[in-house]
Amino acid sequence: MLGAIEAGGTKFVCAVGKEDGTIIERIKIDTLTPEQTMPEVIDFFKRHKVKALGIGSFGPVDIDQNSPTYGNITSTPKPGWTNYPFLKTMKEALHIPIEFNTDVNVAALGEMMQGAAQGFDSCLYITVGTGIGAGAVVQGNLLQGLSHPEMGHVLVKRHPDDTFEGFCPYHKDCLEGMAAGPAIEKRWGQKGHELQNKQEVWEIEAYYLAQALMQYILTISPKKIIMGGGVMKQAQIFPLIRKQVQELLNGYVPLPQITEHIEDYIVPPALGDDAGITGALMLAKRALEKE
Amino acid sequence: MLGAIEAGGTKFVCAVGKEDGTIIERIKIDTLTPEQTMPEVIDFFKRHKVKALGIGSFGPVDIDQNSPTYGNITSTPKPGWTNYPFLKTMKEALHIPIEFNTDVNVAALGEMMQGAAQGFDSCLYITVGTGIGAGAVVQGNLLQGLSHPEMGHVLVKRHPDDTFEGFCPYHKDCLEGMAAGPAIEKRWGQKGHELQNKQEVWEIEAYYLAQALMQYILTISPKKIIMGGGVMKQAQIFPLIRKQVQELLNGYVPLPQITEHIEDYIVPPALGDDAGITGALMLAKRALEKE
Ligand SMILES: Nc1ncnc2c1ncn2[C@@H]1O[C@H](COP(=O)(O)OP(=O)(O)O)[C@@H](O)[C@H]1O
Ligand SMILES: Nc1ncnc2c1ncn2[C@@H]1O[C@H](COP(=O)(O)OP(=O)(O)O)[C@@H](O)[C@H]1O
Ligand SMILES: [Zn+2]
Ligand SMILES: [Zn+2]
Repeated sequence: MLGAIEAGGTKFVCAVGKEDGTIIERIKIDTLTPEQTMPEVIDFFKRHKVKALGIGSFGPVDIDQNSPTYGNITSTPKPGWTNYPFLKTMKEALHIPIEFNTDVNVAALGEMMQGAAQGFDSCLYITVGTGIGAGAVVQGNLLQGLSHPEMGHVLVKRHPDDTFEGFCPYHKDCLEGMAAGPAIEKRWGQKGHELQNKQEVWEIEAYYLAQALMQYILTISPKKIIMGGGVMKQAQIFPLIRKQVQELLNGYVPLPQITEHIEDYIVPPALGDDAGITGALMLAKRALEKE
Repeated sequence: MLGAIEAGGTKFVCAVGKEDGTIIERIKIDTLTPEQTMPEVIDFFKRHKVKALGIGSFGPVDIDQNSPTYGNITSTPKPGWTNYPFLKTMKEALHIPIEFNTDVNVAALGEMMQGAAQGFDSCLYITVGTGIGAGAVVQGNLLQGLSHPEMGHVLVKRHPDDTFEGFCPYHKDCLEGMAAGPAIEKRWGQKGHELQNKQEVWEIEAYYLAQALMQYILTISPKKIIMGGGVMKQAQIFPLIRKQVQELLNGYVPLPQITEHIEDYIVPPALGDDAGITGALMLAKRALEKE
């Protein structure tokens, strides 16, 4: 039996399952302080006698294996979790192989191994929700360098009709500041799901998201782009994004995946809301194989 | 003896050298048509009896090993070179292990193995010249996905004082359109090297380049950024770029490499103009090790 954690800012999803991605049992635990949350998490995996564990965590996290603080959640404002040694705590409690990464890198892994990007060795997963985050698998590896990607904060050009100033505390009008769920709500005075029939809302939303995808395509050239999160439940936005990506690239990357079959290139998660937890299970599988 | 080719649009640099990066002999051959240029290239390597060859080529190229056109130069406007089977031609002539990649990916490899990024497993190399191109090594691999990176064409925001429309035939005011050497010349009516003492030229240039670096940092988080090419000979631009990168990120990536020691993070090539040819030699080494 393999264990998986999708650690989010409001809840932890813990699951046990099989190497083929089947989830056998799962529980949700509220993200309170580590003292309140972690004993329950540890207990669940002890009870199921898991052989290995994969963790996809909210961030920022330290994923540098050579760092003394490897596996810590780092500078989060969330009470109790700043510099919390997440991986170390789990290792000391369970004594099994554990792999640790960001929630979005892990979701990309899930979609690559069990979802929309099966058969490929790379994909990008972006979630558009309360914030915007993206992760990727590149040549088989969960993307990492000096740190993990922070692709939600790339620069975008302002839409000429948009006077909203942006809400990112660091950059104001970066991608997240202009296109995450709260930006839609602040710009239009209503939440995204109440604006379904307002065409201009989704044109502007697609304008920003397409720019970000263009940057990702030109930089890491993913083999598939998977877009999830609450805002992407507005399925009518996919064709708008695809069209704007083509217009922005303007034939510059003359690959049929982009110029002809873009509806198979920019897609919703095949695993729906299970991309993260399935990816964590796949990460547990990798942890076991590495031993 | 190992062989190396840096294939550019105006000249081919061919060299032979050792596994430690030492170049023993090199020649330059004009890039005319393949019929005129290639026999000379092949002859050089036959004469030196090289055991393996690394090629860094101008693009776009097909670097997908599973593609029937792997190793071809693809949609270049250069007469005679469109869909030219570069790798295949060399393999049939030499019968040795050969690795093939883009000029800028290969330059990144050179800087990582013998230059400014030694000791790291990742770096980004960007050249700012007649065009702008960038390549990267990520987790030890030359970056590639659906295709190779085309980072020179990322989107940038216009400088508020800049009325130049941009010269990229695909995107007008992308990074290359606004910041490559010809953009400087068209904007100011003089070539870059004649504008050395005009502060506003380099402020605007740094404004665009810093935005691009921000996108790359947020996306692939390279462990070192190396900036080469003709325009970067204006050494006074480095401090401007570093400062603007810090201002754009605004503490969002709180790593000491960026917030404290950015003068060691964004640097000129340690190999000078030899990043590409040295990288090609290192690629030959990899080709040999793979056999
Ligand atoms: N059906 C929907 N249509 C448009 N926006 C939605 C929808 N569902 C959720 N959202 C928006 O997405 C954000 C929540 O994102 P979600 O991915 O559900 O959670 P989180 O990012 O917090 O994990 C909110 O800003 C919400 O308004
Ligand atoms: N010292 C310099 N200062 C500023 N710009 C320069 C300098 N040297 C070359 N350039 C500009 O760089 C461009 C040529 O780039 P270079 O890297 O030398 O060649 P290429 O990109 O064609 O391989 C030209 O636009 C030229 O004006
Ligand atoms: Zn931001
Ligand atoms: Zn362009």
